[in-house]
Amino acid sequence: MSARPTAYDSPIEVVALDADDTLWHSEVYFERTQRRFTDLIRRYVDPDLDIDAALVAVEHRNLAAYGYGIKGFTLSMVEAAIEITDGAIGTDELAQIMASGRTMLDHPVDLIDGVDDTLTALATAGYRLLLVTKGDLHHQERKIAASGLAQRFERLEIVAEKDPATYRRVIASMGVDPAAFCMVGNSVRSDVLPVLELGGHAVHIPYHVTWAHEQVDHDGTVATLASITELPAWLAPP
Amino acid sequence: MSARPTAYDSPIEVVALDADDTLWHSEVYFERTQRRFTDLIRRYVDPDLDIDAALVAVEHRNLAAYGYGIKGFTLSMVEAAIEITDGAIGTDELAQIMASGRTMLDHPVDLIDGVDDTLTALATAGYRLLLVTKGDLHHQERKIAASGLAQRFERLEIVAEKDPATYRRVIASMGVDPAAFCMVGNSVRSDVLPVLELGGHAVHIPYHVTWAHEQVDHDGTVATLASITELPAWLAPP
Repeated sequence: MSARPTAYDSPIEVVALDADDTLWHSEVYFERTQRRFTDLIRRYVDPDLDIDAALVAVEHRNLAAYGYGIKGFTLSMVEAAIEITDGAIGTDELAQIMASGRTMLDHPVDLIDGVDDTLTALATAGYRLLLVTKGDLHHQERKIAASGLAQRFERLEIVAEKDPATYRRVIASMGVDPAAFCMVGNSVRSDVLPVLELGGHAVHIPYHVTWAHEQVDHDGTVATLASITELPAWLAPP
Repeated sequence: MSARPTAYDSPIEVVALDADDTLWHSEVYFERTQRRFTDLIRRYVDPDLDIDAALVAVEHRNLAAYGYGIKGFTLSMVEAAIEITDGAIGTDELAQIMASGRTMLDHPVDLIDGVDDTLTALATAGYRLLLVTKGDLHHQERKIAASGLAQRFERLEIVAEKDPATYRRVIASMGVDPAAFCMVGNSVRSDVLPVLELGGHAVHIPYHVTWAHEQVDHDGTVATLASITELPAWLAPP
C-alpha cells in the first residue's frame, strides 16, 4: 500500500514539520560531542569497554527525569564520566565535557539544504504550516529565533513528548481532522507512528544520523522521502 | 493609588497563577541544595570567599544559554565547583552535587497551604483560571501532573521568559483585554511588573525565599497579599 495521498482522499490542509534534523542539523553535533567524550575518557577505562553504550545507558536511565535536550545530555555525560572511570577522571576533563555541551548550546543554527525553498513552496501551495518540536523549551525557542524561520509558521509547538496524546491536542488546536494533517520528520518513532495511529498522514525524511533512542522497527510501509525538497510534489495528489 | 480593583473597573475575568513558590514550594529546595553545595566545597576554598555569591555569578553568566530550571542550576553548580576550587574538588563531591540536583528534580510536589481551597473558591466565583510558569518544559509538565491541579486550569502555559511580549501573547490567546486579566505570583519582576506595563492587574504574594535573579526594586504600590487565601476577597470588588 502506498501512503501517498490521492485525489480521492480528503485534502491535507496542515503540514507540520519537526525541527531538529528535519529543518536544521542537530544530531551531528551530538555525535561529534560524543566522540570527544569518548576520546577524553578512553585512557581511564578498560580498552574493551564500549564507552558509547555506557553513555547511552546513562542517558536512557535519566530520560524520565531530564527529558530531551542538551542540558540533560551534558549532565548525563558528566555522570557517565565519573561513573565509568570509577571517579578517576580529572576535573580538567570534566570541565572540557561541560564546555563541549555548552558549545552545542551556543552553536549557530545550520539549515538543512532545501528547507527555505521548500517552506516557500508549501506556503505558496496554500498549506498551513506548523512547527512541532520536542526538547528543551529555552533552547528550542533560541534555535527557532536564530533560524529566521519563525514567521513562516502559523504556530510553533514545543512539546515535552511526541506521543499520540500530544498530537491529538495539537491537531485539535489547529481545528482540523487527523486526515487533513500531515507530520513530517526524521524520526519514525516520534514523527510518524503516533500520527498514523491517530489516522493522520506522516512522512519520514531520514537524517544520516539517528539517536539510539529514536530508532524503531517498522513494517516498511512508512512513506519515506530522501530530501525535504521532494515534499511539495509528494503532497500534491497525482 | 490602590491597585485593588473597584466596582467601576472592567471586571477581572481571567486569573493567571504562577506555579513555583505560588502554588507549590520550589525555591526552598534550591536554597537547601545550595547550602549543601557550600558545605561540600568550603574546605577547598579560601575561608573568606563568598561561595554563594560565586555560584550566583556563574548562574547569571549561564542564564542566557541555560534558561531557568534545575538542570541548568545543576550544570552551574558543577561548573562553579570546578572553577572556584581551581579544579581541586574531587569527583566524589561532584557526584554528590549532581545527585543533589537530581534529588530536586525527583522531589514530590508540595502544595503551599491554602492553594487547593483557593482554586476551588476562584472557580466557584466564575474566574477562568490559567497557569503561567516559566522554566524547564519537561520538569514543569511533570510537576503540574504530580500536583493533581492540572484539571483545575482552563489552560497551562509553560513559557521560556515572563516578559511583556510573552504576557501580551498569553492574554490575547485568552481572548480578553489586559484590564480583564490578573496575574498572581511571588515574583515582582516576572509576575507583576510586565503585566502592569500592559495595563493588566497583578498581585504579589511573596514567598519567604526569593532567588537573587528575581529580586527587583519597586515603588511600593504593588498589590501584595500575605497568603493566596486572601486572593478571592481581594478580587471581589467592594
